[in-house]
Amino acid sequence: MILLFTDFGWDGPYVGQMKARLLALGVGPVVDLMHDAPAFDPRASAYLLRALVGQQSSPAHWLAVVDPGVGGARRAVALAADGHWWVGPDNGLFALLVRAAEQAQAFELPVPETAAPTFHGRDVFAPATARIAQSGPGDWPAIDPRTLDRPAWPDDWPAVIYVDAFGNAMTGLRADRVPDNARIRVGECLLTRARTFSDRAPGEAFWYANSLGLVELAVNRGSAAERLGLRPGTAVEVLS
Amino acid sequence: MILLFTDFGWDGPYVGQMKARLLALGVGPVVDLMHDAPAFDPRASAYLLRALVGQQSSPAHWLAVVDPGVGGARRAVALAADGHWWVGPDNGLFALLVRAAEQAQAFELPVPETAAPTFHGRDVFAPATARIAQSGPGDWPAIDPRTLDRPAWPDDWPAVIYVDAFGNAMTGLRADRVPDNARIRVGECLLTRARTFSDRAPGEAFWYANSLGLVELAVNRGSAAERLGLRPGTAVEVLS
Amino acid sequence: MILLFTDFGWDGPYVGQMKARLLALGVGPVVDLMHDAPAFDPRASAYLLRALVGQQSSPAHWLAVVDPGVGGARRAVALAADGHWWVGPDNGLFALLVRAAEQAQAFELPVPETAAPTFHGRDVFAPATARIAQSGPGDWPAIDPRTLDRPAWPDDWPAVIYVDAFGNAMTGLRADRVPDNARIRVGECLLTRARTFSDRAPGEAFWYANSLGLVELAVNRGSAAERLGLRPGTAVEVLS
Repeated sequence: MILLFTDFGWDGPYVGQMKARLLALGVGPVVDLMHDAPAFDPRASAYLLRALVGQQSSPAHWLAVVDPGVGGARRAVALAADGHWWVGPDNGLFALLVRAAEQAQAFELPVPETAAPTFHGRDVFAPATARIAQSGPGDWPAIDPRTLDRPAWPDDWPAVIYVDAFGNAMTGLRADRVPDNARIRVGECLLTRARTFSDRAPGEAFWYANSLGLVELAVNRGSAAERLGLRPGTAVEVLS
Repeated sequence: MILLFTDFGWDGPYVGQMKARLLALGVGPVVDLMHDAPAFDPRASAYLLRALVGQQSSPAHWLAVVDPGVGGARRAVALAADGHWWVGPDNGLFALLVRAAEQAQAFELPVPETAAPTFHGRDVFAPATARIAQSGPGDWPAIDPRTLDRPAWPDDWPAVIYVDAFGNAMTGLRADRVPDNARIRVGECLLTRARTFSDRAPGEAFWYANSLGLVELAVNRGSAAERLGLRPGTAVEVLS
Repeated sequence: MILLFTDFGWDGPYVGQMKARLLALGVGPVVDLMHDAPAFDPRASAYLLRALVGQQSSPAHWLAVVDPGVGGARRAVALAADGHWWVGPDNGLFALLVRAAEQAQAFELPVPETAAPTFHGRDVFAPATARIAQSGPGDWPAIDPRTLDRPAWPDDWPAVIYVDAFGNAMTGLRADRVPDNARIRVGECLLTRARTFSDRAPGEAFWYANSLGLVELAVNRGSAAERLGLRPGTAVEVLS
């Protein structure tokens, strides 16, 4: 199974061309895990990707492209750890995965001369994913996996990493690290924990452990993002 | 074939995680039938779902999630009728299907302790769909299928149930129950029937039998929703 | 492999029903190449389709539906050329493909009495695509492929054909026909060529050879469409 995680959006031919390339190379099935990862934001995407990996029980090939530096100097890499493979840019996207891995191997990917400088998803990462699925990394140069980490990034990031279409805001905090009775401060507001939306009155803001295991800020039948002024990067604080 | 019918939208990891779960359990292919079913509106969704079922000639497994009460007291159910299987919440979503079925069987689904209270699509309905496709309902408790009906809902609902991106408005009325020369009243306007868009002048409002077999209100090269003030739930009246 | 190219958008049940029909007929895999082709605009779509075909190395079946005249007098056609098959309306969508083909065959498709007049994608083009994939065109009437061309349309069209979600604007000009040092005039602005976005300062407008091989107008970290007032059909001029 190949899981796509990108910030391409659903418009345009970009996701489709990447999938057509994978299928033409004989691999699949391909699942669109999400295509609205935090745009141009490898850091927020890294925390979201780790949470998604935690929900994926069976080993998979992940094609992860949040790549504002495409065509520039950043390396193209593949990472193997804990039964999964990840392919994408070396910009921190895999920082939290490699940090948590018991054993990890990493490789630098070749960039063909013919690769479009603005579309490594189709021309570099998709072919690399197909090759790994079919025959492994072969003679690609091994690199130190720890170089994919970004040590300055905390294990849990007290900030909004993703706002969904309803205005709910995921954070980079793992809910099982936060006490049930903790309050979350965001700006002037203090939020307490609820189990789910229907436990609170319409219009009331709260935090809860979302289906990815992350602390999420929400308003029952309302938009937390609008009410509390949240967007990717907005800082929050845990008060225990 | 597994058909997905949800109000999740395309954004976020929700549809993707549900699909990844299905494929990890070894079933497929999975088709995204639609992910913008009337949001939080099982009633409008029920009329739309019936119309879609009418267009599906071959038997299929339907995973239908329009579930504002997720994590609350409503039952999770499976329904078998007329060669199809439907899995989803017991909130009326299957009311019109069970009412029309010649023979029907229904079951209450187990909700695992570990299921995320906000994401039964991934943790309850997807695994149940996979199990049915592979080995049937097994020892799930049978329930009276008639309890899935909502007797107060009419067979044909004179109201808007879905507005598409162009502003065309589907109703809960089956077109073959409405005489060709009937007029549809919505607010102050009276609409007559056309065969298709190009039969009317640009800017002209009309009704027609859409490709789902429903009465749809439309404006050639314009938005009926905007012109006539339509949204899910807006009442219409058939004048014969 | 069946590639879908439509202007249906992702909302509604339209793409899903077309896919369910294909899978029910036993063909696949099906790839959503794009569903936001220039809406109701076969001409702009024709230039975009040619570019996409140029990126598809392996032979494929293309189901292409940009069809403002659906249900009217235009023919439904199939075109075989250069190892590919295309199925869709005869409204110019295949003009540039047939013009460039070394050998081409074309056929007129039957339109079943039961086809919904507003949804030939599901009821005419999907079944025709399945039949070709399984057993070829059979006894469909052959037509002169040159009648699918539109001789008044130039080989390279100096106009915007597609604006993506970030405001980048593709044109109908193939980049390998335009000298590297050419300037592109659009309105009062003169744009020079860059290799990729990061080669220019934030906010600067430029043109570049995009990943489809087309001249694209862009602004680094900004919207060219907004800055330069671009939309499908906007004329540009090449100054060599």
